[in-house]
Amino acid sequence: MATRFALLIVPADAAEERADFSDSFTPADPSAPALSVGELSTQRGDGVFESIGVVDGHPQETEAHVQRLAHSARLCELPEPNLEQWRQAVAVAAAECPPGEAVIKLILSRGVEHGPTPTAWATVTPAGDFAAARTQGVRVVTLDRGYDIGAAERAPWLLLGAKTLSYAVNMAALREAHRRGADDAIFLSSDGFVLEAPTASLILRIGDRFVTPAPSGGILHGTTQLSVYEHLAGLGLTAEYARIPAADLIAADAAWLVSSVRLAAPIREIDGRPLAVDAPFTAALNAYLLSPRD
Amino acid sequence: MATRFALLIVPADAAEERADFSDSFTPADPSAPALSVGELSTQRGDGVFESIGVVDGHPQETEAHVQRLAHSARLCELPEPNLEQWRQAVAVAAAECPPGEAVIKLILSRGVEHGPTPTAWATVTPAGDFAAARTQGVRVVTLDRGYDIGAAERAPWLLLGAKTLSYAVNMAALREAHRRGADDAIFLSSDGFVLEAPTASLILRIGDRFVTPAPSGGILHGTTQLSVYEHLAGLGLTAEYARIPAADLIAADAAWLVSSVRLAAPIREIDGRPLAVDAPFTAALNAYLLSPRD
Repeated sequence: MATRFALLIVPADAAEERADFSDSFTPADPSAPALSVGELSTQRGDGVFESIGVVDGHPQETEAHVQRLAHSARLCELPEPNLEQWRQAVAVAAAECPPGEAVIKLILSRGVEHGPTPTAWATVTPAGDFAAARTQGVRVVTLDRGYDIGAAERAPWLLLGAKTLSYAVNMAALREAHRRGADDAIFLSSDGFVLEAPTASLILRIGDRFVTPAPSGGILHGTTQLSVYEHLAGLGLTAEYARIPAADLIAADAAWLVSSVRLAAPIREIDGRPLAVDAPFTAALNAYLLSPRD
Repeated sequence: MATRFALLIVPADAAEERADFSDSFTPADPSAPALSVGELSTQRGDGVFESIGVVDGHPQETEAHVQRLAHSARLCELPEPNLEQWRQAVAVAAAECPPGEAVIKLILSRGVEHGPTPTAWATVTPAGDFAAARTQGVRVVTLDRGYDIGAAERAPWLLLGAKTLSYAVNMAALREAHRRGADDAIFLSSDGFVLEAPTASLILRIGDRFVTPAPSGGILHGTTQLSVYEHLAGLGLTAEYARIPAADLIAADAAWLVSSVRLAAPIREIDGRPLAVDAPFTAALNAYLLSPRD
């Protein structure tokens, strides 16, 4: 889908308190040139981002996304974002969203090389059609992420846990999955623990409890996974975090990849072995995820 | 240093043979917007690059850089670059270089999301002043790269060995080095072997032989290191590739970080322990690297 709207943002100091940041926003034609070739986002993948799902103009979980943007910025030692400015940018972008499902992407780059400030922008794009993934499910393959489970804690400069613009490996993993006839991938640590998908979190159901890999460093804390966990808790269901050995994937009774835009995609096959899809439960989950959430 | 010149390139098909690609080049003001917000280079660090050192208008080792750009593109499954087109782009950029030292950067991005073709451009920037690094040397710290030495071969989707735009970790490693009072870093594999620096190759001298980590997957094959090795062979010196345990770093009699723009920077301290700088040899090495090379 083509990007519909772009908003260039002059990042404000985190400490700046004011009611209206609209003079720091400039709408831009998304198909026209807007960024300079010296941009470190483009030269170095040096920046952070968020993708916010929008349903009928309502941006989902804005606060969780804006907070995670700030968390990623801290891990990358970018200037602290002004949260209120980003909230207002999301609201401006949401007003430009078409009916139905859309995506607001927030990008905070380190800026132009040797430049004085970061650059920032938001875009609005209609969402793709994920009906098949949400109902029929996705086939996944497991792929080695190369890092052992302790790497993130040992080596914070690996930026594991930050949602950076350096996503070439995530994109390469998706191409590898497609080459193997699958729709998506699940990363495993080099020492055999389950991590996450390149652009989604993983939730397993084992017996009567839901389990997701513990977000201890090497895993991005998924906003949609958190939202699903709140929902499951509200239903009185048990939802936990655990270190999950790869062998347990096959032992799961059901599994989902959850993310802000595709929402809950049930996994119907892992490395060629079928997994049952719980269609009614999945439909209820996606109905929840499509309802307005804050 | 501010970018002096930018050249937008419409990538030609690799098979297209023609004498003159100049109609596929458009000079651009480097400070003016030139890229759209939908660029995958900026959203995903999804593309590859090269930095070519230029001395008094002569681009060094153009062929090696253009060939490595093509190698990186293959690893990232980007459309095969037209080598002759890139050679001509380098020549156009070289003509815009100021006297003294400069950098031509080549960038090949996957293009605009859902767009039909990659986007590409080249920039010209005057080089920084590396006199101190070249003569007094640099202090380095060793940092865990998180991957074991076998990861690249086992998991090609990690894109180790490709010079991608996803360099956020390389930049974070340099910040960590600076935080520790050093100038640069040497990455170690998680199982304790010496790899490379975030933006340079490493060459050790142990006794009367020169050794660099074997570029088997996890290490970018350095164009400057290759050029130095040719030079050393011409002098009748022994220059080899080896798997180097981290402990051997301290056993080295001398060591250099070599790269296209800073050239040979002798290492004068590793993790706080001093290393002797061979000033005359280093000066001769940099004199060679500053002479016109093809």
